[in-house]
Amino acid sequence: MSELTGAQALVRTLIDSDVTVCFANPGTSEMHFVAALDDLPAMRGVLCLFEGVATGAADGYARMAGRPAATLLHLGPGLANGLANLHNARRAHTPLVNVIGDHALAHKPLDSLLESDIDALAGTVSAWVRRPATVGDVGRDAAEAVAAARAGGIATLIVPADVSWSVGAPVGPPVPVAAPPVPSLDFFPGERCALLLDGDALTERGLRAAGRIAAATGARVFSRGWPARQRRGAGVPATEPLAYRGEQVTAQLDGVRDLVLVGARTPVTSFAYPGKPGEPTPAGTRVHTLAPEGSLAAAVALEAWADLVAPATEPVLAPFAPPPLPHGPLDARNWAAVIGALLPAEAILVDESVTGAAALQAATAQAAPHDFLALTGLAIGQGLPSAAGAAIACPDRPVVCVQADGSAMYTISALWTMARERLDVTTVVLNNRSYAILRAELERTGAATGAAAALMDLSDPDLDFVALAAGMGVPATRARTAEELARHFADALREPGPHLIEAVIA
Amino acid sequence: MSELTGAQALVRTLIDSDVTVCFANPGTSEMHFVAALDDLPAMRGVLCLFEGVATGAADGYARMAGRPAATLLHLGPGLANGLANLHNARRAHTPLVNVIGDHALAHKPLDSLLESDIDALAGTVSAWVRRPATVGDVGRDAAEAVAAARAGGIATLIVPADVSWSVGAPVGPPVPVAAPPVPSLDFFPGERCALLLDGDALTERGLRAAGRIAAATGARVFSRGWPARQRRGAGVPATEPLAYRGEQVTAQLDGVRDLVLVGARTPVTSFAYPGKPGEPTPAGTRVHTLAPEGSLAAAVALEAWADLVAPATEPVLAPFAPPPLPHGPLDARNWAAVIGALLPAEAILVDESVTGAAALQAATAQAAPHDFLALTGLAIGQGLPSAAGAAIACPDRPVVCVQADGSAMYTISALWTMARERLDVTTVVLNNRSYAILRAELERTGAATGAAAALMDLSDPDLDFVALAAGMGVPATRARTAEELARHFADALREPGPHLIEAVIA
Repeated sequence: MSELTGAQALVRTLIDSDVTVCFANPGTSEMHFVAALDDLPAMRGVLCLFEGVATGAADGYARMAGRPAATLLHLGPGLANGLANLHNARRAHTPLVNVIGDHALAHKPLDSLLESDIDALAGTVSAWVRRPATVGDVGRDAAEAVAAARAGGIATLIVPADVSWSVGAPVGPPVPVAAPPVPSLDFFPGERCALLLDGDALTERGLRAAGRIAAATGARVFSRGWPARQRRGAGVPATEPLAYRGEQVTAQLDGVRDLVLVGARTPVTSFAYPGKPGEPTPAGTRVHTLAPEGSLAAAVALEAWADLVAPATEPVLAPFAPPPLPHGPLDARNWAAVIGALLPAEAILVDESVTGAAALQAATAQAAPHDFLALTGLAIGQGLPSAAGAAIACPDRPVVCVQADGSAMYTISALWTMARERLDVTTVVLNNRSYAILRAELERTGAATGAAAALMDLSDPDLDFVALAAGMGVPATRARTAEELARHFADALREPGPHLIEAVIA
Repeated sequence: MSELTGAQALVRTLIDSDVTVCFANPGTSEMHFVAALDDLPAMRGVLCLFEGVATGAADGYARMAGRPAATLLHLGPGLANGLANLHNARRAHTPLVNVIGDHALAHKPLDSLLESDIDALAGTVSAWVRRPATVGDVGRDAAEAVAAARAGGIATLIVPADVSWSVGAPVGPPVPVAAPPVPSLDFFPGERCALLLDGDALTERGLRAAGRIAAATGARVFSRGWPARQRRGAGVPATEPLAYRGEQVTAQLDGVRDLVLVGARTPVTSFAYPGKPGEPTPAGTRVHTLAPEGSLAAAVALEAWADLVAPATEPVLAPFAPPPLPHGPLDARNWAAVIGALLPAEAILVDESVTGAAALQAATAQAAPHDFLALTGLAIGQGLPSAAGAAIACPDRPVVCVQADGSAMYTISALWTMARERLDVTTVVLNNRSYAILRAELERTGAATGAAAALMDLSDPDLDFVALAAGMGVPATRARTAEELARHFADALREPGPHLIEAVIA
């Protein structure tokens, strides 16, 4: 019989299945897991001061590493705190393994103070949930959790404390993951055709295939507005991101007769509005699916399709043509040109600028080549944590996080993890002193002014992100002009470790 | 037909049912509710920068006001962010009304990006969940939500956006709440009897009745260790709080033959440990129930019982005998004496000191009379938000929040709401640079040292709470000695508005 505790077998199984980072905010019911880390340095434990940081970091890590990280969360409330970023991860089809400690089996009926319905919470975000019944099961279940995650979803393993502390647990051998089926489509892209790419289709491989088809047939290439990960910039075929508002999407798709979905879904507006359609695709557009949303073979399928319809065509690549450095006081757009002008090659650009997203995408379309990670599930508070996770996945690449002010406050303690782990993340907080996107939404509902407008206002008192960063060990500066932002941004990129720049938007 | 939108009728119904504060972090699906606030100044909207602040504030508000506040939360992820403090509120039997905006009915099948299973999340914490089907229902449902909350639980109203924006909603008349049944117990407290008080029994009325019984019969009076609200200090009958650890509770109850529960439950340990019992009450103790946990008539029942068994007896009251002001560097205990020595009369003392709780309770037992609010569900991040809510409920009373460092980071943006609303809250953050309670738990599992110990350590980098407070508009100071803490604490109490003192514990 194994000499290992359940917790030791669990950690060893994760490592054997190539899960080697655990973003953790543990509690008493996870102490044996924590203790197991001492013997197993192949698992890197990263402390997060809030579970939403742990789950967001695991999402950002997996988007860049291409393999899951684990989270370690404390019972139902710990999982609850991590749910919003798990929601984003679900909408990104991110592979991710949650490990949640639960009370010992005999303790659960006592309904002690932290008891709650973990399974109900986990079910709202997970593709796979399991609770090992005995110490003999935990290794096998952990290996199956990793396999379930690798299929593109969230796997949640709820481990009773007595399963963790009991001895006799075998390590689970890695569970092979079947190659995803490669879909195909019997359709020749003709006039007035457009592709809509998402997920795996937004890799360089997928984008090159789409670019070949576009060059050969004149098809247009759209992409999800806020993707999980997209290769962009000089040397990469460009896409036209779908806009946030439904009426703009309808205008973008005007004239498209055939829309081919490649790893994407039919466009849907984020919200309903009185008298406006929730599906902005123009009536009469014929929608075809080459690869469904979440397919891990979208790029391969697209390449095969390109070999058929554009066998001898090369894609058009975006030139290296970053915007010129702007001058004068910062406003709602010119900050983006600073990022585009100075973005280093092979940067990972994490975007939670919300109302600034369109400006940022425009300003970086012909910047140095980079990977772009966006807010996939609209649950704010993703930017800073996923930047931390991406930096852990790719320690040799610069990470740039462009972060709105209101959203930043959701998971602000990610800055502390960046400082602790010496992550090379440059965060630019866009401080416009409001929930600007909600102001725009409020205007849509009518002319609210007094109490209502106050609930969108972040200016009383002003948030001082330089002080907040300093409080968590991250060096920070403030910029009020484009010149200041350029200088601070270049300085931050030059120095290793985390930096924050508060960009005060007039 | 009513000219009101569903959102307007909802807000008016809440006001008519005496719910007049709404702790809000709204999003697009709540914009009509937000707009309705402009016409209805009787509802105070309090902006929170994170939903966990909103729910924690609503909990603290209701504990002190004795009536529910509303929260306004954005879809499933907004609710998820608020769940941990809703868990605490559930364990406190706090009346609370959540209003959650959902997508319009026709939009839900589109599975747009923020769609998730709100009902599953709400069900884990709510005593009552409803989703008005039409604009005609929302007023009635809101009134029933308030009545359900007043019965001592969390009511969650999920309002589709089209129900909010449609016109023709009648205001719901207040729903009367039946007086709770007054329980009784056919048992005469004799030798070796003890009472265990919680909930309503910890009001001054309940404590005086318990004190009479104790004085007449020699019964001992225990109380829940971390209560929702307890009247304490000079002039109030004292109780002996049950300890955090099971073995200490067993020792406390040693010799007790009859344990009478008054608004309390049988003691249960927070966690299971190998070979240790989850129910620390000594074998052979007979347990009686005068009033079950959550009873709103526990004090009345106790008074009636006291009239029977102690008709002519007065209770023994705690003297005014605060601890002397200590001297020298701050350590794990002497900070508490500073609080006890200087606590102003009628303070609301909010405790999330975690490992410091026993010291704080000892040091304030004979301090000036005060109300004591503690961490009821062990989901950390309750202290700062509930202090903000208590200050809004009782604007004429000083609020003192004693807050552990690790827990503070969960909902640190409550400081911003304190600044914005000019709340008279003095926060003392105990910075021991660790998750001290987890260190103690880790020691129980064995001799973990390296990676494991690092996951309990908050010292790399040190959190600077003075900077964090300044970043959110709260004036702050730092104390390293008892003398400095006393000076800063007295200064903060003298000046109106929020203040923070970082007490650096050696």
